Amino acid sequence: MNKSIFYHAGCPVCVSAEQDIVSLIGEQNVEIVNIGEDKARISEAENAGVQSVPALVTPNGNALHINFGASISDVKG
Amino acid sequence: MNKSIFYHAGCPVCVSAEQDIVSLIGEQNVEIVNIGEDKARISEAENAGVQSVPALVTPNGNALHINFGASISDVKG
Repeated sequence: MNKSIFYHAGCPVCVSAEQDIVSLIGEQNVEIVNIGEDKARISEAENAGVQSVPALVTPNGNALHINFGASISDVKG
Repeated sequence: MNKSIFYHAGCPVCVSAEQDIVSLIGEQNVEIVNIGEDKARISEAENAGVQSVPALVTPNGNALHINFGASISDVKG
């Protein structure tokens, strides 16, 4: 199985969701990307359908938005 | 590890998210509850902090709201 990618922006909701996701699917199965720090990857997240963070993009390409921390436009600003 | 519980209400967003979650964390690790059909479990979901479906309640008790299908009040109605 390919890895999932978890996009976040360091917000408290994101950190809490990250811990849950890593615990559920296993650290080795998910890449964690902080688009607040790594802004070069914002467009990659947008292309994957991510509209807000935290979000998990599954190996088959679905974007699962988890709770709500920040919109992509907030992270860009 | 205790099981997670995935609450949904049969909506298209729910079904799509269910397939993703089962694929990610494994069918044996998650109980699927349709609160649209099993209304007796709505209060259980609410007590777990579920505000909308689809949602995943993790073994440590956190409610992760995934995308957005329907609010609990819609399911009650």
